Amino acid sequence: MQGAVLHGPRDIRFEDRETPKILKPTDAIVRLSATCVCGSDLWPYRGAQPIDGPTPMGHEYCGIVEEVGSAVESLEGGHFVIGSFFASDNTCPHCKHGYQTSCQNREFVIGAQAPLLRVPLADGTLVATRDVPDSDLIPSLLAVSDVLGTGWFAADAANVKPGATVVVVGDGAVGLLGVLSARQMGAERIIVMSRHESRQRLAREFGATDIVTERGDEGSARIRELTRGIGADSVLECVGTQESMWQALKAARPGGYVSYVGVPHGVQLDGAELFFTHTHLHGGPAPVRRYMPDLIDLVLKGAINPGKVFDLTLPLSQVAEGYRAMDERRAIKTLLRP
Amino acid sequence: MQGAVLHGPRDIRFEDRETPKILKPTDAIVRLSATCVCGSDLWPYRGAQPIDGPTPMGHEYCGIVEEVGSAVESLEGGHFVIGSFFASDNTCPHCKHGYQTSCQNREFVIGAQAPLLRVPLADGTLVATRDVPDSDLIPSLLAVSDVLGTGWFAADAANVKPGATVVVVGDGAVGLLGVLSARQMGAERIIVMSRHESRQRLAREFGATDIVTERGDEGSARIRELTRGIGADSVLECVGTQESMWQALKAARPGGYVSYVGVPHGVQLDGAELFFTHTHLHGGPAPVRRYMPDLIDLVLKGAINPGKVFDLTLPLSQVAEGYRAMDERRAIKTLLRP
Repeated sequence: MQGAVLHGPRDIRFEDRETPKILKPTDAIVRLSATCVCGSDLWPYRGAQPIDGPTPMGHEYCGIVEEVGSAVESLEGGHFVIGSFFASDNTCPHCKHGYQTSCQNREFVIGAQAPLLRVPLADGTLVATRDVPDSDLIPSLLAVSDVLGTGWFAADAANVKPGATVVVVGDGAVGLLGVLSARQMGAERIIVMSRHESRQRLAREFGATDIVTERGDEGSARIRELTRGIGADSVLECVGTQESMWQALKAARPGGYVSYVGVPHGVQLDGAELFFTHTHLHGGPAPVRRYMPDLIDLVLKGAINPGKVFDLTLPLSQVAEGYRAMDERRAIKTLLRP
Repeated sequence: MQGAVLHGPRDIRFEDRETPKILKPTDAIVRLSATCVCGSDLWPYRGAQPIDGPTPMGHEYCGIVEEVGSAVESLEGGHFVIGSFFASDNTCPHCKHGYQTSCQNREFVIGAQAPLLRVPLADGTLVATRDVPDSDLIPSLLAVSDVLGTGWFAADAANVKPGATVVVVGDGAVGLLGVLSARQMGAERIIVMSRHESRQRLAREFGATDIVTERGDEGSARIRELTRGIGADSVLECVGTQESMWQALKAARPGGYVSYVGVPHGVQLDGAELFFTHTHLHGGPAPVRRYMPDLIDLVLKGAINPGKVFDLTLPLSQVAEGYRAMDERRAIKTLLRP
């Protein structure tokens, strides 16, 4: 089998990898219908996050169950399934509280930029659809696996309620789907901070009402102006840098909610400064599994079309170009066909 | 008039101060029935927070209205009133959201360790009781002004719900009243981190079910043990140091809630570390005004007795001894009689 392996900064190769097989009775092997490149893949790709030697990449996936381990009860070969980037048993206390990405038995799913993937804890991790879906739904169902689930968590963790005024910091795929999620949750006003015309267009299509192109203090001033000096009820931080985090914290009103859903890189929060923002702060690895059944339903009934974030589709063998296009911001998100 | 003035580290003097008078038509002058020393007063007292020359101290108060400005509508001379440390108009958007300590027109109330106090924005800030209360209720009504209101906010901001498992970090007066508040909100299990026998006793009286004397990693291990390896639903951070903040964050389960209610001193939060705790974080200057009417009712009907945190009562002229006793942890909290 051939799949994507990162060898060093900007050195991603499509090369021979061992074919995954059942290692534990709770595993499943899935033949992927589609996979993609995540914004978080760009951190190690850019060398901003060290790797320990050659690393198989990819953690977003959907496809057809090929084989299940002897202890798997709810799935069988032929089922179309979607899973999240952390395998979870979905039964431990943390899972029951809806934090499956902190499952007591969690395992990171890695190597999904390939034709076949081993998924641990298959019963807890994978959600099967009743039928094998039409191929035109694949991009949106793939989005559920991470990028939509993460955008949805961002909106939920920022307490978006009907009528809310929302700010989204970041116009990557997660930010854009944060817009879609906030709209679904009934937000009245959705302000997106973006400087890229194609992303602004998609943001508006997903429900954004205002675009702010300024950043830093000017960006904060513009948000104040747009919110009549009050600040936003809910702010979704979808970048993960020191600048974006403070941009988000300053955009919220006292008592407002700020979520952050990408692993922060180099972010330091001064306790006293944070204290006087009076904000609620919640984030972490998005517990996508919590939302997956509902999000799959929304996609299947055509209520949402999150697959639109994929503005570049390539055969898996061209994975290197998929990374490059995202790195250079020529593409919002690359879908890969094995 | 004579009142308390801080001149430098551990140099608090009872000396002549100008008698407060109405400066704006929205002011009131209150003759104080009682005042007290706040844990936060100890930061400048210990020199851990710089002062700009001689500083009148005190921001907790209740008493009888002596005089009101021409624009004050809801109060008149003779009313018994309680107010919070931030004067607020109680009508601006932040106040309406329940964040009166971030009122767009807020003013810090200072100089309450004195017989008379000027309170700005009197209509918004002060809550009057129907009758002048019995003198034995004064300590508990004074507690509403800050220390109970802050403990209550700590429990509310940590999302304490019926049946919850709660950890309180800190056995000062705020922590102890955080225990009382969590009990009132229906917490099932309340674990207090304390090493002082007299404070442990009061914690148990207020509703604590478990005491943890260990700190740091040992303290964290003990909390894990007491919560069956899961962590607490709600954690109240009532100290304000780097150590106490991380003690709190590590005590919560993923998805749990951590509140922090004292101005953090030297606290830095690493974004990535915070991210993987998966906690909710909320704090800031406690919007005591939001809770004041309900807390006054609870005191007047005898449901709670927060005044028990005052284990030392002195005439105001002995304010220096009041600070010393708290600084040396001989007293939990000092009540001062003008």
